[in-house]
Amino acid sequence: MDLPSRILQEAVDQLATLPGVGKRSALRYALHLMKEDEQHVRDLSEAIMHLKTHLHHCRYCHNVSDTEVCPICSSEKRQRGIVCVVENVQDVMAIENTQQYRGLYHVLGGVISPIDGIGVHDLEIASLLRRIETGDPAPVEEVVLALPTTMEGDTTNYYLNRQLQPLGVRVTTLARGVAVGDSLEYTDEITLGRSILHRIPFEG
Amino acid sequence: MDLPSRILQEAVDQLATLPGVGKRSALRYALHLMKEDEQHVRDLSEAIMHLKTHLHHCRYCHNVSDTEVCPICSSEKRQRGIVCVVENVQDVMAIENTQQYRGLYHVLGGVISPIDGIGVHDLEIASLLRRIETGDPAPVEEVVLALPTTMEGDTTNYYLNRQLQPLGVRVTTLARGVAVGDSLEYTDEITLGRSILHRIPFEG
Repeated sequence: MDLPSRILQEAVDQLATLPGVGKRSALRYALHLMKEDEQHVRDLSEAIMHLKTHLHHCRYCHNVSDTEVCPICSSEKRQRGIVCVVENVQDVMAIENTQQYRGLYHVLGGVISPIDGIGVHDLEIASLLRRIETGDPAPVEEVVLALPTTMEGDTTNYYLNRQLQPLGVRVTTLARGVAVGDSLEYTDEITLGRSILHRIPFEG
Repeated sequence: MDLPSRILQEAVDQLATLPGVGKRSALRYALHLMKEDEQHVRDLSEAIMHLKTHLHHCRYCHNVSDTEVCPICSSEKRQRGIVCVVENVQDVMAIENTQQYRGLYHVLGGVISPIDGIGVHDLEIASLLRRIETGDPAPVEEVVLALPTTMEGDTTNYYLNRQLQPLGVRVTTLARGVAVGDSLEYTDEITLGRSILHRIPFEG
């Protein structure tokens, strides 16, 4: 695409680096911004920059935070003995949205994936073990593994379990089964098989 | 969506003002940018700001431009007696991409649309008439109306034609007909009807 302006071209090239944004969408964004008033564009420009300059990761759980220790890790109202291990920040938000979990979190920043060159030392695993060993910010009784059910997630689960067992914490994982609202007919057999195997008492 | 950080929230809110971007995409963009290196994020942030601070509109055709007069309007290689009237900057790019047009342009910045509150004075119509009256940047012999075939486009065409006729310029418009590659069976009847009515000599 030949653009009539170098400045527009630069903005389009930059916007097209966002995930899932092609040159055509980037151009639409750029032309839209051109028409917006300057203050709004300045606000957007600064908000983006602040993501790098002002945003922190919590010292303990590595979730994004405006402060050195995030509100969850510093809250006395949470069950501070339970730590839920998740892949990324979105997963924390997803679990928080259920309002069913009152413990703390630990964001690994990925899962072990030799194909993508992501090993044990690229993830926040050492800091998880240190949390348990030092009891800082709180003594840990239970670690809930809430990683994706993929080969990489399973590998990471397996590795973490082996590291955690000697530390004397209880290791649990998310229940797998037929999703609420799903019909059995269209549930994949592995999920259905697991849900029969791990059947639970009926709550009448 | 409850975000764990005010700074992240601000970035998501700002990104979600882009056309067609919802909160979920905005969050994906923001989390992506968080992981990028600072120089890249700074480049993006500045490129966006430059759209307001550094980008101009050509004094004559109102296309976007890095300079006061755009490269097309200042080129002596173009057919400077022909002016193609289009709705917006994207239309200029679309026509330029065909490499079939060597004249100049005039970007109206929209079409007459009473429902959206866009009237004659919100568009670059007076400046088009002035270009013809003054012969600046070049004497105009022909005006090609290349507006969309919508009610608003037709209204604008009609209005422009009435203004242009007294000025003694030739007014033409884009050929309408069956698109190249389309089968007659699936062409809408208005298009097919027009293409029979305005049939052209066969080029053997």
